[in-house]
Amino acid sequence: MTKHALELLIEAADKAIMQEDFDRLLEIYAEDGILVIKPGKNAAGKTEIRKAMEAIAAHFDHTLRVRQAGMKVLEAGDTALVLAKTLVSAANLPAIERNATYVFTKDSKGEWRCKIDNSYGHELLLQNNLLE
Amino acid sequence: MTKHALELLIEAADKAIMQEDFDRLLEIYAEDGILVIKPGKNAAGKTEIRKAMEAIAAHFDHTLRVRQAGMKVLEAGDTALVLAKTLVSAANLPAIERNATYVFTKDSKGEWRCKIDNSYGHELLLQNNLLE
Repeated sequence: MTKHALELLIEAADKAIMQEDFDRLLEIYAEDGILVIKPGKNAAGKTEIRKAMEAIAAHFDHTLRVRQAGMKVLEAGDTALVLAKTLVSAANLPAIERNATYVFTKDSKGEWRCKIDNSYGHELLLQNNLLE
Repeated sequence: MTKHALELLIEAADKAIMQEDFDRLLEIYAEDGILVIKPGKNAAGKTEIRKAMEAIAAHFDHTLRVRQAGMKVLEAGDTALVLAKTLVSAANLPAIERNATYVFTKDSKGEWRCKIDNSYGHELLLQNNLLE
């Protein structure tokens, strides 16, 4: 089955994360993109996302592994939602599986850029309930 | 806690579904919005979405009930992802809970419109795996 352009882009992002190639990684995000660092804590914009990615790499002692075990793309014009089974592991982190949700939009050049990177999926609702 | 504009809009959509007020309901969708009718089957654009909504209402013998038991909004500029616990029931359907994912974008007038309406969330991946 031919892969969707967004599946290839997410694979490129995962590779960039593991290689700690943050220049390449940041190209994939929209200028006003957001990254859920952990439930309740978001990075907004490329500067904050880069800082968060560097901190995450250091936190996992530069052994972070990320891969998608399955993806489904829903596309509506210049907007797409990717539902993914995301596997995350590291030397100090047993492998965990997350129901990730990624939103992409096309920029003025027609290139897909990540607007919302939420690897936690609906886990945010659990945290939400606790705070309210 | 003050409700986000998108929480109010989704509540208005749920009310319109239950009242079968499809004119009001369709106002909430983008022209090129998509609705996941069931895993593997999408309606694309307002004409198809209206037809699907009418068929769904008839399928449940005009007793469909929809409400959100929790929502979390992630906003990035003119794009937002809503993660919701959606409760669906009907006279011929025992209550079920879904981890729904909704994507909204702002139109040229700055109004939020639903681009991707996927009440099934990651259930689509199960279906995806079966087909591949």
